Amino acid sequence: MIMTDLDFFFNPKSIAIIGASDSMRFGYTTTKYLLNSKFRTFPVHIYKKEILGHPAFKSIKDIPEEIELAIIMVSNKYVLQAVQECIDKGVKGIIIESAGFAETRKEKFIKIQAEIADLINSSPVRVIGPNCVGLTNFHNEFSSSDIDFKNVPKGSISIIAQSGVLGNVFVDWGAGQNMGFSKAITLGNKIDVDEIDMLDFLNDDEDTKAIALYLEGTKRGEELKSVLKRMKKPVIVLKNGRSEIGSNAALSHTASVAGNDKIYDALFKQHPRILRVDNFYEMFDIAHVFSSQPLPKGKNIAVITGSGSLGILACDNIVKQGLSLAQLSDNTLNKIKAVIPDWVSIKGTIDLGPSMLTSFLPSLEAIMRDPNVHCLLFIFCVPKGPLQQMKPTFAPYFKIMNELSKKYKIPCICACFGSRWVFDFVSEAALKFNIPVIDRIENAIKAFRMMYDYASQIV
Amino acid sequence: MIMTDLDFFFNPKSIAIIGASDSMRFGYTTTKYLLNSKFRTFPVHIYKKEILGHPAFKSIKDIPEEIELAIIMVSNKYVLQAVQECIDKGVKGIIIESAGFAETRKEKFIKIQAEIADLINSSPVRVIGPNCVGLTNFHNEFSSSDIDFKNVPKGSISIIAQSGVLGNVFVDWGAGQNMGFSKAITLGNKIDVDEIDMLDFLNDDEDTKAIALYLEGTKRGEELKSVLKRMKKPVIVLKNGRSEIGSNAALSHTASVAGNDKIYDALFKQHPRILRVDNFYEMFDIAHVFSSQPLPKGKNIAVITGSGSLGILACDNIVKQGLSLAQLSDNTLNKIKAVIPDWVSIKGTIDLGPSMLTSFLPSLEAIMRDPNVHCLLFIFCVPKGPLQQMKPTFAPYFKIMNELSKKYKIPCICACFGSRWVFDFVSEAALKFNIPVIDRIENAIKAFRMMYDYASQIV
Repeated sequence: MIMTDLDFFFNPKSIAIIGASDSMRFGYTTTKYLLNSKFRTFPVHIYKKEILGHPAFKSIKDIPEEIELAIIMVSNKYVLQAVQECIDKGVKGIIIESAGFAETRKEKFIKIQAEIADLINSSPVRVIGPNCVGLTNFHNEFSSSDIDFKNVPKGSISIIAQSGVLGNVFVDWGAGQNMGFSKAITLGNKIDVDEIDMLDFLNDDEDTKAIALYLEGTKRGEELKSVLKRMKKPVIVLKNGRSEIGSNAALSHTASVAGNDKIYDALFKQHPRILRVDNFYEMFDIAHVFSSQPLPKGKNIAVITGSGSLGILACDNIVKQGLSLAQLSDNTLNKIKAVIPDWVSIKGTIDLGPSMLTSFLPSLEAIMRDPNVHCLLFIFCVPKGPLQQMKPTFAPYFKIMNELSKKYKIPCICACFGSRWVFDFVSEAALKFNIPVIDRIENAIKAFRMMYDYASQIV
Repeated sequence: MIMTDLDFFFNPKSIAIIGASDSMRFGYTTTKYLLNSKFRTFPVHIYKKEILGHPAFKSIKDIPEEIELAIIMVSNKYVLQAVQECIDKGVKGIIIESAGFAETRKEKFIKIQAEIADLINSSPVRVIGPNCVGLTNFHNEFSSSDIDFKNVPKGSISIIAQSGVLGNVFVDWGAGQNMGFSKAITLGNKIDVDEIDMLDFLNDDEDTKAIALYLEGTKRGEELKSVLKRMKKPVIVLKNGRSEIGSNAALSHTASVAGNDKIYDALFKQHPRILRVDNFYEMFDIAHVFSSQPLPKGKNIAVITGSGSLGILACDNIVKQGLSLAQLSDNTLNKIKAVIPDWVSIKGTIDLGPSMLTSFLPSLEAIMRDPNVHCLLFIFCVPKGPLQQMKPTFAPYFKIMNELSKKYKIPCICACFGSRWVFDFVSEAALKFNIPVIDRIENAIKAFRMMYDYASQIV
């Protein structure tokens, strides 16, 4: 049976926070956020009568309403009892955020986790964790974690991570890159719900276009094989623990069995929708491109650049990835020549240099209409000083790029190198028009390569 | 003869700006900065009597004082005459920032550049450019470019780049990473002064500890070979144009001959002080480490991490780079056990997780005193939310890390992953104590590897 009915985790009708906190410690920000949110939330505390102005209950069982989701944040030794009470109450889902279980690799804590597992196995309840921060739905703004929704763009990338800390840090990082998220899920020790359940859920989630999966290992090898086969959207997977010492470290982190890396590698390669990457930055940059751009019809890349040096770097990467630099037609070249100073070089990459502001738009239109062009890389490289003084608006660049991208089915990426201020300035302008701005030319070209492979194998 | 007497470029006694600008166009910020600086600067303009409140001269020859350095910013067709006048005036150095010469690959512009070359070859004057933004000395704050000195830390990394735009963007980026610079040099079309001259200059420059060399190609292969042999400090080199199309793009960029990449590769490998990297981020991150840390005595790396997942990533990279995870002595492990909660994992990496704030310093001291430890990687991974609320001070971490690093000759790197705010918060605390904070674990481990190789081969 394929279990994808986990909607109560992402859109709970009512919530109990067991171990709700009204002072600055673990769980405080979640408590404060949910109690003041549109989500119907009840604090549970062993002796406090009130939490942040809301009446608190001694046990979840004392709440005079049905509860759909319980979030457990008490110390590890009280978790077993809390889970029992949740089951008695009849909740549909539990998120156990408390740590101090199998990941310690200590017998007594492994034993408590096993007891919790026994308890939930004889009940229909679904459990995420322990040792995680649960999940966030950016579209309805539900979160069992600590998310600054004002500063995270909504979008269509979903993340599955194991570690709680890293899950939040992923979102922090991605938001700073102006990439938009749909769901962020941390699984912790995976006592029940795991990556397989969540892949199935996200496979049917209309708000998710690309999935970033950070995997340390799975406990259900056969099921992983079959869920990967079922996937209908791109899954960008980062699997750590390639080395033996890394694999050993994974065991003490979330008690995952990393297994033989070669087996995972072979498994991923069997499925054209599963794309393995080498680091976090690649995982997010490539998910960003897949979530926002059309698939290319071929492997010819046109490069418009403000820096000759970065144009060369792009060429080297195009060759490395087995792609081609687009050969523009004479018609296209003539249109560009008509708008650029006579000393601008357009042999190979289109190196507009300082003439960028006046020549960009007509050059872009000519290039995007050229049938030899399948992908567009726009390299933005301008020093902070003049940009801060002039503050030109780049919105029209990205608006037209987006329109032409849709019309001709050409994926576009803006690679922006330089100061943080410049990156923010450019990526904020691009976000509205769905053009991904990333800070690595290498990752942009790798994204084109993966999209090209994906498109060739899927059709 | 080894020409390293180029001091007048970096510390000019008097300066003329030919084509000084008082309105928002190319050269304006340089004109404004130098006219208001401590450097004795005279504006030259074909018809204006005054530039930004300073009397302007029709020709450099009209300035009633000796001029050591001329900066030429006029349109390409007036450059030949301006150079002639500089020679007549007897300047020691000229920086030609104007573009529109050999890099266009157009005959008429190649010819003008050749005429300028003929002119300067029969004179002792030294010339940087054309098609560049000259150079910056961060220690005395001289710049022929546009640098926001308040926001760039002074330090001991020097950069040699070809392209002008990229030179400034490099500094923008590096400053955002809180890495400190000594000199930044852009060479453009290299009509006279080239990377060989500048390598010799920086080799003897006491303010430079590590050199980041971005190379598209050289016109003096034999001299490059001999200067590399002469180098007394680490040169981190990025050479683009590996591919044929990339090499072709280099030709139209700064009219460089990229040549066969394999020849360059073999040349770099001959010299233990020359370290070839694969991208800009590696170049700067590794230069940052070399410029600030002692060389390691071995290849055992201790890892303190706030994220188990990133600890695993570090292990994978340690294996990939042929290094070892340090095996801590029982004595060290007992000291750490005494200060951590019983559920913290210290098998392999020291994964302090949320106990970081209380257990970091005693763990650090125990680890740095362990003779099995040769390098220290501290992985910082904390979500923005709690950090912004608590704002703990990390200065003591980096202060003690720096003291122990000097005492035991152990290079230390902090790898920080997450939001920009967190990176800035941590790297500003570390800057004062000379601990490099970089955002890629891969680059940190690669830096240790390169330092280990450097140390083994140099001694």
